[in-house]
Amino acid sequence: MSLESYMNQVGLQARFASRLLAKASTQQKNSALFAMAEALEQARPRLIEENAKDIKNGEEKGLDAALLDRLLLDDARINGMIEGLKQVASLPDPIGEISDMVYLPSGIQRGQMRVPLGVIGIIYESRPNVTIDAASLCLKSGNATILRGGSEAFYSNQAIAQAVTAGIVEAGLPENAVQVLNTTDRDAVGKLITMPEFVDVIVPRGGKGLIERISKDARVPVIKHLDGNCHVYIDNEADLEKAFAIAMNAKTRRYGVCNAMESLLIHETIVNKILPKLAAAYQEKGVALVGCESARAVCPDIDVATEEDWYTEYLAPKLSIKVVSDMAQAIAHINQYGSHHTDAIVTNNYVKTRAFMTEVDSSSVMVNASTSFADGFEYGFGAEIGISTDKIHARGPVGLLGLTSQKYIVLGDGHTRDN
Amino acid sequence: MSLESYMNQVGLQARFASRLLAKASTQQKNSALFAMAEALEQARPRLIEENAKDIKNGEEKGLDAALLDRLLLDDARINGMIEGLKQVASLPDPIGEISDMVYLPSGIQRGQMRVPLGVIGIIYESRPNVTIDAASLCLKSGNATILRGGSEAFYSNQAIAQAVTAGIVEAGLPENAVQVLNTTDRDAVGKLITMPEFVDVIVPRGGKGLIERISKDARVPVIKHLDGNCHVYIDNEADLEKAFAIAMNAKTRRYGVCNAMESLLIHETIVNKILPKLAAAYQEKGVALVGCESARAVCPDIDVATEEDWYTEYLAPKLSIKVVSDMAQAIAHINQYGSHHTDAIVTNNYVKTRAFMTEVDSSSVMVNASTSFADGFEYGFGAEIGISTDKIHARGPVGLLGLTSQKYIVLGDGHTRDN
Repeated sequence: MSLESYMNQVGLQARFASRLLAKASTQQKNSALFAMAEALEQARPRLIEENAKDIKNGEEKGLDAALLDRLLLDDARINGMIEGLKQVASLPDPIGEISDMVYLPSGIQRGQMRVPLGVIGIIYESRPNVTIDAASLCLKSGNATILRGGSEAFYSNQAIAQAVTAGIVEAGLPENAVQVLNTTDRDAVGKLITMPEFVDVIVPRGGKGLIERISKDARVPVIKHLDGNCHVYIDNEADLEKAFAIAMNAKTRRYGVCNAMESLLIHETIVNKILPKLAAAYQEKGVALVGCESARAVCPDIDVATEEDWYTEYLAPKLSIKVVSDMAQAIAHINQYGSHHTDAIVTNNYVKTRAFMTEVDSSSVMVNASTSFADGFEYGFGAEIGISTDKIHARGPVGLLGLTSQKYIVLGDGHTRDN
Repeated sequence: MSLESYMNQVGLQARFASRLLAKASTQQKNSALFAMAEALEQARPRLIEENAKDIKNGEEKGLDAALLDRLLLDDARINGMIEGLKQVASLPDPIGEISDMVYLPSGIQRGQMRVPLGVIGIIYESRPNVTIDAASLCLKSGNATILRGGSEAFYSNQAIAQAVTAGIVEAGLPENAVQVLNTTDRDAVGKLITMPEFVDVIVPRGGKGLIERISKDARVPVIKHLDGNCHVYIDNEADLEKAFAIAMNAKTRRYGVCNAMESLLIHETIVNKILPKLAAAYQEKGVALVGCESARAVCPDIDVATEEDWYTEYLAPKLSIKVVSDMAQAIAHINQYGSHHTDAIVTNNYVKTRAFMTEVDSSSVMVNASTSFADGFEYGFGAEIGISTDKIHARGPVGLLGLTSQKYIVLGDGHTRDN
């Protein structure tokens, strides 16, 4: 079969399955999730065997240690996948919720019903556990899924797919509810993102390069996450102890995450009081510091920040520091250089908190809290498919709701429209 | 200045204006709308003068009478634009609304704030009143706008733009809040839809060809409206008088609108009772009928429907009629041949209404009401920028809310994240 025919068949099967999933009951979907967990448990030896093929191929191709580690499936990681399935089963089902049902002057009653998006295409790099993660969230939200994992994890993903399908079929749901592409042909991605008749939305998970490429070529909406160049602004009316704790936590809790602070902005009238202490604490943790002239005037061992630094998401123990003359300058800097992901102010001034929340154009805006909280689990969604840096549809951490849409429903009693 | 430089300048100006609009108060925005109305009133002679140039050019180019009529600005239409501005001013301001603010286990308080999308690009065909319509809705929702009207309406749109800008400046809002492109170069559209750094979303208004072309080439999300192939299904448990009224209203209220019924589905056990009466009433109104063999067996003067007919949005006094053996067949037909716009069931059976609402994959699903109600005004939004056939972001009639997004806000008291 040609790639074209294969992809069309997968698409048609997904579309068909999506109609059945849209009307599946919560109990059916949860049964499928538990059956998937059981099937993974049964397939444990086979998963490890197939994963060993990927690891061997990866070693032969000379993948680096970090990539090989991401690729590895061991008992602990299989336990994690099984646990994840049970957690998704325990989440409330968003589908079918009816809201805002009101009577209108014509006499009709109008509201909205929450429904699945339909078919979701997920494109991801080599971690095989994403297969389970994505499949379970899409299934719980009533969507059919087409998954395309990294070619390095081909054998692992095929083995996981078999277990997933076994669980789904056992629960009486359509076998094509979750399909993992069985080809490593790169053109399959190109086809997957350009068949709007079969795929309603694409969720890419991986590096910025992958996501930019997909966004550029897709003819289907993409829920995407580009960079997280996050800021903390310490205002002159901040509680300096809280400011210190937040600035340390936002930078040093973890370095490689998108909600880590990459730039610290400090009001000029308090910079002498807080920067030396902060700089010492960062340096003790091995965080490299660059800054503007005013910051360097206070702490001369801070390196010079270039224009490029203000735009940079380091994802590393490095921080840029800028002294600002007021909040307006801080907001202007964040909106210009930031990536509209997550930005925080530390202040006790009521007027400033209102202005900062209104004017900072980011998916999460925080007052007196660490940027580290920008996360689907911390926000109480119980799951996260990713963090969206888009403005339309879903903005910020995306949980089950981001995989749904709302349609209008109208109830009448023979109503017709006059004018 | 090259087109490239011009478009970049327009984009940069729009982005800058959008920051100021995002924090404009409701009162400022309403003042601007009233000032725009006053400026249009003042500019009335000039508007008619400039419009005469477009009409003259159109006549010379040989535009047909319908197009020339759409192009015409007379006193009544200027009154309509002025009235429209006042109506938009009277709508509630959606911006800044905070919802779902809850405390989470970590102690942070998390909620969502409604915010503008930023910069909206509107591409439309020749009706000049769309300039006011689109500009006013975008302004009220705090968005900057870049408008590109049809080249036939160039002089009219430039004159309207001057009045719009005069009103905006008088109210103290940024003069680039609404920009009408001053070029008829077709490449300007190509540039407008591929500058994600300046434009957050594109709303095309016009024929299907225009919208398909834009969706194909855009590198920015598009809120779009393709076809409205709407259905009414008359169930065997329908009240036949109500069914008759709904089927007549959905087809014959207006023929050229997207919420008009294009296909009628009738349950086989009642087709003898209702179809002859309906067919006679349609024929009396001059509606051409095509149908399946079973429909033709009941009313032999109905023409043969081809496979193509079931897919067709006639936008004309023509209707396709199909007899189905049960509701499941009706739903399958609607999901396969329909355009997921608006579909209705007429029945008194409770179980069927629940199934129909869940299983029909359309932006509006109705029970015992005419498809004609699918409209932003009828739904109580007070305005409509269009009807979206997309699944993500806004689905169905789009009012002010569809031009907004929600960002997360987090309030803390020095909170840091442990794990």
